[in-house]
Amino acid sequence: MQAVLSDGKVVVAGSEAETEAETDILAKGYGRKKGTIELSLEEAAFLLETGKIQIKDGAGKELNLNVFLEHALDASPKFALRYLIYTDLKERGYAVQPGGVDFWLYPRGAKPGEKPARHFIRIFSESDFLSLNDLAALLISARNMRKEPIIAVVDEESDITYYEVQEANFESVEPEKDRRESKKRKAKTTLLGDRIVLWDADLAENLYRDDFYGKLTKEKRLILSLVEAAYLMKKGLLEIEVRGQESDLDKYAVYEDLRKKGLVVKTGFKFGSHFRVYKTKQQKHSSYLIHVLPEEHVFSMQELSRAVRLAHGVKKRMIFSFKEKVGAESIIRYVDIGRMKL
Amino acid sequence: MQAVLSDGKVVVAGSEAETEAETDILAKGYGRKKGTIELSLEEAAFLLETGKIQIKDGAGKELNLNVFLEHALDASPKFALRYLIYTDLKERGYAVQPGGVDFWLYPRGAKPGEKPARHFIRIFSESDFLSLNDLAALLISARNMRKEPIIAVVDEESDITYYEVQEANFESVEPEKDRRESKKRKAKTTLLGDRIVLWDADLAENLYRDDFYGKLTKEKRLILSLVEAAYLMKKGLLEIEVRGQESDLDKYAVYEDLRKKGLVVKTGFKFGSHFRVYKTKQQKHSSYLIHVLPEEHVFSMQELSRAVRLAHGVKKRMIFSFKEKVGAESIIRYVDIGRMKL
Repeated sequence: MQAVLSDGKVVVAGSEAETEAETDILAKGYGRKKGTIELSLEEAAFLLETGKIQIKDGAGKELNLNVFLEHALDASPKFALRYLIYTDLKERGYAVQPGGVDFWLYPRGAKPGEKPARHFIRIFSESDFLSLNDLAALLISARNMRKEPIIAVVDEESDITYYEVQEANFESVEPEKDRRESKKRKAKTTLLGDRIVLWDADLAENLYRDDFYGKLTKEKRLILSLVEAAYLMKKGLLEIEVRGQESDLDKYAVYEDLRKKGLVVKTGFKFGSHFRVYKTKQQKHSSYLIHVLPEEHVFSMQELSRAVRLAHGVKKRMIFSFKEKVGAESIIRYVDIGRMKL
Repeated sequence: MQAVLSDGKVVVAGSEAETEAETDILAKGYGRKKGTIELSLEEAAFLLETGKIQIKDGAGKELNLNVFLEHALDASPKFALRYLIYTDLKERGYAVQPGGVDFWLYPRGAKPGEKPARHFIRIFSESDFLSLNDLAALLISARNMRKEPIIAVVDEESDITYYEVQEANFESVEPEKDRRESKKRKAKTTLLGDRIVLWDADLAENLYRDDFYGKLTKEKRLILSLVEAAYLMKKGLLEIEVRGQESDLDKYAVYEDLRKKGLVVKTGFKFGSHFRVYKTKQQKHSSYLIHVLPEEHVFSMQELSRAVRLAHGVKKRMIFSFKEKVGAESIIRYVDIGRMKL
């Protein structure tokens, strides 16, 4: 089948009536019919590489793959990444169409037009950066388009990693009840550097066993972290006044928000995150790692990869949290990023 | 046994002749004898908590643990972290003495004085930061003192993670030989965005099979990363001229240095690092993850924890690399940080 490259577009140079080959191309999910059949540069390169079409330039000279790629790169600086991802997805049996943010992705086996796309794909190189703002914008696009977003990262070896991005869904946990309301008494504590020691052995055991606060020592003292102590103080259980450092205010706000949802929140230090989170205190292993970031944070792709890979390795979800200013208010956002096996 | 706290020091108030209890204290690795027996604040708190001594203030009033801790904190802001780590090490059966950077650590079962300390410990809180410069300085101290450095990080739950720090030792690998010297020919390539396609099927297979350069496609084309291409160009094998971006110069320098050592270097993206490194091309799994950082980089403890934990999870060593300016020259440093089970 013959196609012509002109003005950065590839058009199948068919006759008036659609040939069988053309029908076949369309049926297989390549191109869009607008009178003629228009192929994206990736589609054309893929069909050229697999020997399904020949491409000529405007002057009628046949282009080999090498030359076609150079033309395509001139026409679109992002072509190289797009082509690598397009090829990868086609080889995995997916139908892909240009559009959405970078590509639309259709369920395996489905053809564009038959079923709507379920995902859209945004493309990155290993050396790119991604800001939290971009991530939030991606989720807004997703909501507007009613599609799920995928981030595709091409590494230096031209291997591709796919990440799914979504608002975190902390399944249905029961909001925290204040079972201690009736027996409130302010307990004596000592500020031990950046942690707090609670001396009342009964209350210590109670807080530890019931809600997994702090670390219980052999001598039945409870060593609380600053965020735990600040939260318990706010609930009227501790005597001490804990002044959070400015830089830790976001971290405390996230801690409080999660505890109020009824989740059990402990440090995630051993997993390189601020918090590890259990759905219930009966759970043996935590379900989520939560890392709190300033709203203006920008990820390197390595950073994203490292956090998500580590979380998967220990069977947890990686969630990035940040405070988003919405007018005069600010809300706490949770973005869940997971590796996706396509 | 009686001790007295005065001027931020705790002195065992013994008689002229050393009592049996005092001999015992010294034999168990507590205190230093300077006429009287002097205890560090951590030693005194530990002995007080375990009921081995009573401590009075200068006025002869007995201090309970609560009050003693408050005095100790007033005397030394780092006391809380020191005490947590001291207690942890003692409970694990180690002899510890104040000194070195924060503590000297003696081999398990050994007593100070009997055998020299093998390690020194530097103490951090989960919320602290550590610069590459500090890390380099730590290695210099280690060399001067002929001890191995340990970084101890106390997390919010008051659990402690120990890290060993050392210059990376890339075991004995054979420096790269230029087996292709005789058949040098400049091969034709195409710059495909931020990667390079090599079209010569023979050379492509040769480079891939012999030295694991690039990614070999089904059609026997070799897709090289920018660093690989820049290195092969320098060796006179490729026609293309690859201009590294300013920000990538350090990364290229590290790549070249590792390749010259005879190591096989590939992207470490899936592990959240710049490179994964094989000792030989026969190796199935890589041995090292290498992340290249600017000399002025400052780690958060979470960042360090995440990188090291991930590397351990996949049975690799985590190595941070940076260019250090030494006068007009700059040398490439490799610092290996690993979790240490004490």
